Amino acid sequence: MLRTNTCGELRIENIGKTVVLSGWVQKVRDKGGMLWIDLRDRYGITQLILEEGKSDAAVLSVARSLSREDVISAEGPVIERSAKNANITTGDIEIQVLKLTLLNKSKTPPFTIEDDTDGGDELRMKYRYLDIRRTPVRTALELRHRLSIETRKYLDSFNFLEVETPYLIKSTPEGARDFVVPSRMNPGEFYALPQSPQTFKQLLMVAGIDRYYQIVKCFRDEDLRADRQPEFTQIDCEMSFVTQEDVLQTFEGLITHLFSKVLNVQLPAFPRMTYADAMRYYGCDKPDIRFDMQFVEMNSIVKEKGFPVFDSAELVVGINAAGCSEYTRKQLDALTDFVKKPQIGATGLVYLKCNSDGTYKSSVDKFYAPEELAKWAAAFNAKAGDLILVLAGGADKTRKALSELRLHVAEELGLRDPKVFKPLWVLDFPLLEWNEDEKRFFAMHHPFTSPLPDDVHYMSTDPGKVRANAYDMVINGVELGGGSVRIHDRTLQKQMFSILGFTDEEAQNQFGFLMNAFEYGAPPHAGLAFGFDRMCAIFSGKDSIRDFIAFPKNNSGRDVMIDSPSVIDSKQLVDLGLTINK
Amino acid sequence: MLRTNTCGELRIENIGKTVVLSGWVQKVRDKGGMLWIDLRDRYGITQLILEEGKSDAAVLSVARSLSREDVISAEGPVIERSAKNANITTGDIEIQVLKLTLLNKSKTPPFTIEDDTDGGDELRMKYRYLDIRRTPVRTALELRHRLSIETRKYLDSFNFLEVETPYLIKSTPEGARDFVVPSRMNPGEFYALPQSPQTFKQLLMVAGIDRYYQIVKCFRDEDLRADRQPEFTQIDCEMSFVTQEDVLQTFEGLITHLFSKVLNVQLPAFPRMTYADAMRYYGCDKPDIRFDMQFVEMNSIVKEKGFPVFDSAELVVGINAAGCSEYTRKQLDALTDFVKKPQIGATGLVYLKCNSDGTYKSSVDKFYAPEELAKWAAAFNAKAGDLILVLAGGADKTRKALSELRLHVAEELGLRDPKVFKPLWVLDFPLLEWNEDEKRFFAMHHPFTSPLPDDVHYMSTDPGKVRANAYDMVINGVELGGGSVRIHDRTLQKQMFSILGFTDEEAQNQFGFLMNAFEYGAPPHAGLAFGFDRMCAIFSGKDSIRDFIAFPKNNSGRDVMIDSPSVIDSKQLVDLGLTINK
Repeated sequence: MLRTNTCGELRIENIGKTVVLSGWVQKVRDKGGMLWIDLRDRYGITQLILEEGKSDAAVLSVARSLSREDVISAEGPVIERSAKNANITTGDIEIQVLKLTLLNKSKTPPFTIEDDTDGGDELRMKYRYLDIRRTPVRTALELRHRLSIETRKYLDSFNFLEVETPYLIKSTPEGARDFVVPSRMNPGEFYALPQSPQTFKQLLMVAGIDRYYQIVKCFRDEDLRADRQPEFTQIDCEMSFVTQEDVLQTFEGLITHLFSKVLNVQLPAFPRMTYADAMRYYGCDKPDIRFDMQFVEMNSIVKEKGFPVFDSAELVVGINAAGCSEYTRKQLDALTDFVKKPQIGATGLVYLKCNSDGTYKSSVDKFYAPEELAKWAAAFNAKAGDLILVLAGGADKTRKALSELRLHVAEELGLRDPKVFKPLWVLDFPLLEWNEDEKRFFAMHHPFTSPLPDDVHYMSTDPGKVRANAYDMVINGVELGGGSVRIHDRTLQKQMFSILGFTDEEAQNQFGFLMNAFEYGAPPHAGLAFGFDRMCAIFSGKDSIRDFIAFPKNNSGRDVMIDSPSVIDSKQLVDLGLTINK
Repeated sequence: MLRTNTCGELRIENIGKTVVLSGWVQKVRDKGGMLWIDLRDRYGITQLILEEGKSDAAVLSVARSLSREDVISAEGPVIERSAKNANITTGDIEIQVLKLTLLNKSKTPPFTIEDDTDGGDELRMKYRYLDIRRTPVRTALELRHRLSIETRKYLDSFNFLEVETPYLIKSTPEGARDFVVPSRMNPGEFYALPQSPQTFKQLLMVAGIDRYYQIVKCFRDEDLRADRQPEFTQIDCEMSFVTQEDVLQTFEGLITHLFSKVLNVQLPAFPRMTYADAMRYYGCDKPDIRFDMQFVEMNSIVKEKGFPVFDSAELVVGINAAGCSEYTRKQLDALTDFVKKPQIGATGLVYLKCNSDGTYKSSVDKFYAPEELAKWAAAFNAKAGDLILVLAGGADKTRKALSELRLHVAEELGLRDPKVFKPLWVLDFPLLEWNEDEKRFFAMHHPFTSPLPDDVHYMSTDPGKVRANAYDMVINGVELGGGSVRIHDRTLQKQMFSILGFTDEEAQNQFGFLMNAFEYGAPPHAGLAFGFDRMCAIFSGKDSIRDFIAFPKNNSGRDVMIDSPSVIDSKQLVDLGLTINK
């Protein structure tokens, strides 16, 4: 071992011990007769000291030649520091260097290896191996490791088996676009990389592996939006002989365990909300419930008072920004500008100030008398000092816009504390979504999701009305995972495919192996999957997943560090029987 | 939960408790007034009993309709069996069924779900989800899970971080053939699937993650031999600031931990052997040392005695099959036939029987007087009753053939007990192999392996002579894993690429990102990787890895269950900008 200890390990009680440390030069301070080096490794920073007289001239000369990020090894006794540093765990001691070896020289790095680096995103990605040396990125990867270790511990203790499912599978046109892999041994044919191990985990249930999990890479060839990655990691789980309630309990238990073990945060029992309520009260299927600010629908109190915008709107709906009645004209204008941004899409914003003197001030005073405005305030349970913000228009679009406004206002009011965690189950999603372009239903979750027992009869009469036996786990307005009770009956599965517009032949061709398996004793089963990259970000209170992935790709799907994808040998193309179109 | 207990759980102390069990019907025995069902799940088998009079007629009628592999749920009290079954853990009790639910009907499975099934390989693969219901396959997957859990536990306790490296990487022509993935967003360009995370783990060392591991899928597009899979799993590890000795200690520790925790087998310290000795004494680089039977080279005692075959041979070398002097003519002929098989390639076999009466009998008596044969026996330390088997010819080929004969004879003598485990480190492999076809050196391990410090000076003068700082772990004649101390110096790495025939431009183009990284303070580092599929097989004393993979592919790289690879949509090809050659 080229070290006896790490740079994060030595304490006052180690004084007198001769140690060898190895690591990177964080900083050199040369004061003439004395010279200090901050030596860094994964575990921390330890100060090295060299003094003329006490260290060899040769050793001092090596030390004087050092620059940032050189890799060195230093040997000497641990001594007590005269000026202690309470900011680092090793701040009580330093190493009096008697031997010093330069293990590898470094060029000057293109950005500083500091918590707040001067490197931009693109540069950091190109030199990701330097970026990972920075504490924020390293601790992100350490958190990821810890979460995966604790996930496995918990699931193992409940008899879940981790089973590896294949990466070279079969392409299916349903859902997102697959990455495909040409087969050289079977010319003209392709494997696909899995978008999830969905069908395989269901086959494992048929196979009697009644509790399965896997922390597994998945792949989707989508046009990348910010913070989407073509490859991402799921914690994928499935159970047999269970009801929805069992799945909710089990995975609420997992997340509670993770928060407790990894963050020392004790979560309360998770509240549950139907999809219908989530849409009605929060305008989205993953509400952030760290704060209240529920939607109040106002159609019954605002219509037919002569205000044409409200009269013609399908929905008039608002939120109460408590304590904001003193918002200035400028602040209100900024909110209006916010809702009018194309990605929000509202046409305007109506406000009602509930002034501290009990009077009301609204942008639509002209149409609503004070006693009408008092009715608004009552509907919101608004108190003096509150500010009511109202949008109007088509119901879906208006809810979506108000949901964005709600988050925006909460952000401004500091109600979205990243250290506060509010989990939630959202239940009873619709089974199907109507696609107006293709004039057919699509599965909202996926085609293996079972309908709620109460709604099965709608499958043949009114499929759009069927609620799914599906659930999402949401924390702080972010979907952490989701799943469903699966269809385990071949006839129901066939009916589902037929509603989705598959001919029997297409269904058989694409999912025949699963439907055939269902004929040989498929148990009732259910499961869910967590987005692991996202989970890491949530645990850290971060929005971006990128720093929780060791080597992420950019928004064009490129790895700028290794410069991939790239052209391949023409011989390789010949072997694969492929030609690139000009 | 559709059960209160599993089918492997109930014992005599549970008598009186009312339980619900769910699982698959293993067997129904109907004796008229009484009917027994063996109910199976992942955890075991529990007997259900139904009696006329005690169970409802409706319940009995459901029971009578059941057939193998139907999925049912049964409720009733645990009672004591009159005829106990000591062969199963639940054999003291049975369930008196009061309620019985058919959860899903099964067609008759195409083979029996028994330890010894009547299903052939192809059928078992096609219906893998039924095959996994069989105990031998299920326990293989359980062993795999246990090994991965314990591997992570051990490595985590030594501060190794599991870091996920990307699957969509860059194709490199060196080594085996890559699977490639066309990029739709970057037309004409391809990702490659990793053959191993080698370069990424080295980058993680540059990044300061000084102990890394990952249990990770790797991909190689090779023509498949028996028991090779296009996708396979590695336990991939790397460490910084270590010497070879540290790596050997750490991973000897891992394997010792796994044998102790998973099999309750205590391994001794691993002996170490140089590659040169392995070849000299065993004729192969992964000797099975469960038994001795070392090679003895006989050139000095057999040449120039008038036997032209030995006189013209580069090497005459033999083994002592102790206690086999009574082998019959038929047995000796069979051994001769064995070595003459094309895949072994010897031209003949010479034997010497050391008879129990002290005389010698050899197939080459004509050329060697008894006192000459006595010299042979002495060279082997042979005792009366032993049988010496000798091959002659070109040195490499003869060693290889004798190695096969050694294993074959040991197998016949029962010396290869799958319950006995003899680990071994093989060290000091050659760095390079000369390829006669391409007239250039290839890296024996990979191009990042460092030379032994003592041999560095040969790099420029006689590269073929350089030994690598590389090591393989071998158990029972199978390579479990291997690795090396890596090159961390850019100049040495450049020299290595140049010996391998890369121009600077090619090296920069393919591995520039790694060589550039080496300029920014690469620490000394070393690592290794274990073949995880193979490890599972070794722990079970099995030769084939296939049952340790949930969903393996056949020898043409096909998954016969899902029928993949397959043709894809022409639209998908257009999106990728590819045409399939006619």
